[in-house]
Amino acid sequence: MTKHRFEKICILGMGFIGGSLGMAVRKMKLADQVFGVSRKKGTIRKALEKGAIDRGTTKLKEGVTDCDLLIIAVPVSIICGMAKKAITYLKHGTIITDVGSTKKEIVEAIDRLIPGDTSFVGSHPLAGSEKSGINTAADSIFAGKTCIITPGEKSSDSSINKVKGFWEALTMHVVIMKPEEHDSILALTSHLPHLAATGLVNMAEDFGREDSRIISAIASGFLDTTRIAGSSPILWHDICMSNRKAIVSTLKTYRELLQKIERAIKSGESRALIKFFERAKELRDELNKN
Amino acid sequence: MTKHRFEKICILGMGFIGGSLGMAVRKMKLADQVFGVSRKKGTIRKALEKGAIDRGTTKLKEGVTDCDLLIIAVPVSIICGMAKKAITYLKHGTIITDVGSTKKEIVEAIDRLIPGDTSFVGSHPLAGSEKSGINTAADSIFAGKTCIITPGEKSSDSSINKVKGFWEALTMHVVIMKPEEHDSILALTSHLPHLAATGLVNMAEDFGREDSRIISAIASGFLDTTRIAGSSPILWHDICMSNRKAIVSTLKTYRELLQKIERAIKSGESRALIKFFERAKELRDELNKN
Repeated sequence: MTKHRFEKICILGMGFIGGSLGMAVRKMKLADQVFGVSRKKGTIRKALEKGAIDRGTTKLKEGVTDCDLLIIAVPVSIICGMAKKAITYLKHGTIITDVGSTKKEIVEAIDRLIPGDTSFVGSHPLAGSEKSGINTAADSIFAGKTCIITPGEKSSDSSINKVKGFWEALTMHVVIMKPEEHDSILALTSHLPHLAATGLVNMAEDFGREDSRIISAIASGFLDTTRIAGSSPILWHDICMSNRKAIVSTLKTYRELLQKIERAIKSGESRALIKFFERAKELRDELNKN
Repeated sequence: MTKHRFEKICILGMGFIGGSLGMAVRKMKLADQVFGVSRKKGTIRKALEKGAIDRGTTKLKEGVTDCDLLIIAVPVSIICGMAKKAITYLKHGTIITDVGSTKKEIVEAIDRLIPGDTSFVGSHPLAGSEKSGINTAADSIFAGKTCIITPGEKSSDSSINKVKGFWEALTMHVVIMKPEEHDSILALTSHLPHLAATGLVNMAEDFGREDSRIISAIASGFLDTTRIAGSSPILWHDICMSNRKAIVSTLKTYRELLQKIERAIKSGESRALIKFFERAKELRDELNKN
């Protein structure tokens, strides 16, 4: 894969991912210029201080004009709205991508509104964290991780290759999926664990109000398992709303699985229980090696 | 709390906790002699190499004779059996404790079989890990953590104080609970997260067999949330079997909570969903500060 160098990359949104992306792009010299757009002047100032951008603006038009790669790094619920506004200012041939955690709704909506001379290829770099905001951005978060790209019906091969090459230049491992495949897979590998973790903390809160010793009995197992429950509530609300069908179906399957285990414990089915733990240990140990 | 120095501490079982305990006791000079008992000669050799014990033996009688503190650090299912055997060799006044992850069954059983001149006080240092075996032992695992102690009906005040002082000398924060309180609290803070995490890995395994891209879409959120699923299957089988009633009831409550969230997502109840995430973030952020 030849490394493609862009003239002007514009990043819309200077949060944890947007800021980190600017830092990584500048470090790897993937563009002559990285232009950042944020609603807040203070965020632009921070982004400049952190070396996440060469220039920044609060004005969408100024940011996106003449860019050859536009990366939309705002919360899932406003990606399509931002794309719609930005498109009117883009030059012929600009490639658009995003970093949203859900893809079907976004890819379909942007595909509907995009003109023929621009191309949208959805992206989801699996580099998220419970952190948020420009202050926590770091250029290292993408290295060696997976990025899923989800072309739309209108994406040209050339734009798919350029977006693929962009993430690969950040040393990411790129996997191409259909948007709906992405959403059903991520419902299982990301959205379900998030809801499971958030549920555990809500339980501790429910019972901890009645008995404060519950909080003192929280140890590393609980803390690791629930780390992601410290993530942005709005961001996760948006993800759930944008991937409702797949999440609801995955949650149901998960509840049924837990009910089976509950029954096995209740009736003392040692063999089923050991198998349940052994299967998990085997896969989990394997994942540690990767 | 005055630091009580023991003449001979015997640790039965040289796994991750038993080995780490020997290392910490020797480092903090809490005993003239630390004697380790293991079924395997190779484990004794390793424990000596790691500085976890002063002397070791595969013979129970040799190990426990003349000890003034006996710490039973074997899997939950064999703690009572080991206690029963060891008791016949103990001198007058020996204090017995354990490090088991469940307490009601153990404390009641040992209380029934203990003679009047020895005293049992159950302990559960919250220093567990997905690691197991003497090779992964480390003296640092107890520092600053919580240890729950659960006296039985027969425990003397003096023995409770000595066991409390022992864990405090390892810089642990000691909380005293009734055995059944311990079990219902730990069902929530430890056993439930373990089953939730193990369930997530089983789901990934179920679906990953059909579509290998699922494994490639696993990122840090899933990995953190499921770290503890790499723990010993037998150990966790034993914990579940020893705390069935509390675990079954906690699992049921958790399933019901997940079902509520599932319904909220299905019917697009944004406000309920945001509250669910916000509550979790608030408590989780607070736990990070401790």
